[in-house]
Amino acid sequence: MSLGEFGRIARYFAPLAGPGGLGLKDDAALLGCETGRRLVVTVDAMVAGVHFLPDDPPDLVARKLLRTNLSDLAAMGARPLYYLLATALPASCEDDWVARFAAGLGEDQRIFGVHLLGGDSVSTSGPAMFSLTAIGDVAEGAEIRRSGAKAGDKVWVSGTIGDAGLGLAVLKGRYPALAEEHRAALAARYRLPEPRTALGPKLAGIARAMIDVSDGLLADLGHICEASGVAATVMAAALPLSPAALAVEAGEPDLRARCATTGDDYELLFTAPADADVAIFAASREAGVVVTMIGAVTAGAGVRLLDAEGRAIAIGRAGYRHF
Amino acid sequence: MSLGEFGRIARYFAPLAGPGGLGLKDDAALLGCETGRRLVVTVDAMVAGVHFLPDDPPDLVARKLLRTNLSDLAAMGARPLYYLLATALPASCEDDWVARFAAGLGEDQRIFGVHLLGGDSVSTSGPAMFSLTAIGDVAEGAEIRRSGAKAGDKVWVSGTIGDAGLGLAVLKGRYPALAEEHRAALAARYRLPEPRTALGPKLAGIARAMIDVSDGLLADLGHICEASGVAATVMAAALPLSPAALAVEAGEPDLRARCATTGDDYELLFTAPADADVAIFAASREAGVVVTMIGAVTAGAGVRLLDAEGRAIAIGRAGYRHF
Repeated sequence: MSLGEFGRIARYFAPLAGPGGLGLKDDAALLGCETGRRLVVTVDAMVAGVHFLPDDPPDLVARKLLRTNLSDLAAMGARPLYYLLATALPASCEDDWVARFAAGLGEDQRIFGVHLLGGDSVSTSGPAMFSLTAIGDVAEGAEIRRSGAKAGDKVWVSGTIGDAGLGLAVLKGRYPALAEEHRAALAARYRLPEPRTALGPKLAGIARAMIDVSDGLLADLGHICEASGVAATVMAAALPLSPAALAVEAGEPDLRARCATTGDDYELLFTAPADADVAIFAASREAGVVVTMIGAVTAGAGVRLLDAEGRAIAIGRAGYRHF
Repeated sequence: MSLGEFGRIARYFAPLAGPGGLGLKDDAALLGCETGRRLVVTVDAMVAGVHFLPDDPPDLVARKLLRTNLSDLAAMGARPLYYLLATALPASCEDDWVARFAAGLGEDQRIFGVHLLGGDSVSTSGPAMFSLTAIGDVAEGAEIRRSGAKAGDKVWVSGTIGDAGLGLAVLKGRYPALAEEHRAALAARYRLPEPRTALGPKLAGIARAMIDVSDGLLADLGHICEASGVAATVMAAALPLSPAALAVEAGEPDLRARCATTGDDYELLFTAPADADVAIFAASREAGVVVTMIGAVTAGAGVRLLDAEGRAIAIGRAGYRHF
């Protein structure tokens, strides 16, 4: 017999609660805000069959949900603190699935230093769905918005680009001839993003505009340009590719354009004044995350991907949209 | 053709955003906390076919979702400030439905003085689902938790009890002989709760423990008793019934026990010292919400409903649970 809503909360989720969560036993949670800091709040939802596969390991589903939200906080330059979780589960979902889901959250709580503050659990006749609200904080006035980019800024990105999209292709059976280590590395990038929670806060006061790559590098850079009233160019040759993506590129010469348009990388994409490179590399070193300069902000509107001769590469669709 | 995710956000939801919401154009929202106050956060989810009927008016669905969360804030003694919203909609959901849903939120934003801070919108192959995170604040140390009830306290409840459960029965075709005005009044209570956002904060410093009635009066009083380590008795004759419920009671003598166990009333249920009645009635008058003393807190454990002779009334099931 199932533990039921109350039983599952008590058994699996209450142990994840931080002090302000009141043991998940009250109507709401309490939290303060340090003097001179502001809270940063974001929410993301995931649906089985849309954002994850129904037979994905439950701990990875939970961790991906938490990490995509932590990535949004990092993109504002905020440090992560708490989260709230709403779950809608079909009646067929067993306690063991919930136990493994909660175990995944517990593991990432330890890694990222966050705590559960509250939640709701309901039943659904449809696919499982989760909605997570993450809360962090940032020094007052230090938040990094999308709207601060200026002509003359350079464009930077953390980590490597396109791996998550390639990982999804691998999981769907593509690239069967690729070396097993590369296939595994790409699939891992799709299944479990690495939010740049250490780098994001270190870029406060350095980056002028920032976003995390979820829709696709060019689409997300487009969001910055639109919010900032500027244009941007990206040099395809400068895009940082992983060893696995480079191995794919060997047999697929136009891969870079695809890497620039697939989503789910959860890398930080930011602009900064041209003389900020020393500070950026210092932040990169402290956070242990590679950053690469990939382009420039100009006057105008729109985003162009340039080949080695400076010609614009035609892009079929700029990023991925949910409808 | 549908506006799509971005189009719907820009058209329907961005106009609902408050200053900290950054026009819903950033990765996360910003909020501060006044000196000497703490933030209070809660989340509630609703699924079509479980928490509302698929053909319910979309504006009422939205308002019910918002109001149930505001009720949780009120139950902590907090004033409401902001909310975040995640929506999962089937592809068949049309823009007009979303427009009416957002219009309902806009109307309640004006009534309750709250603003949208952020959100996420995804697609689902299942029924529509919504998750709302509400944020309020309360003076530091003034929050009213479930765990503060003490033996000797009196038990109080706001408004009238059992109307929402009767309203659901009416909507399902029961009580066809009941006067139309009563049927309409009961259905309205089910469709659109009235969160006690004015009363809740006024009870800070007066009530020792508080909860809102969502699972059912006896079940929710049970939550207070369990968290506080006490028992409670409720006098059936003292339960405040609406004129419509009294009309039903005329043909159904055991109605009071049912009113004490059906949920969704979203009234405030609280305990306070026996000498607090003057302060309670003053708060009631200022908030324009009737409150009624219905029982007492004692040593021990559990909740009993007593008849006019002081005998315990047998209760089939103490409240309603989602599984």
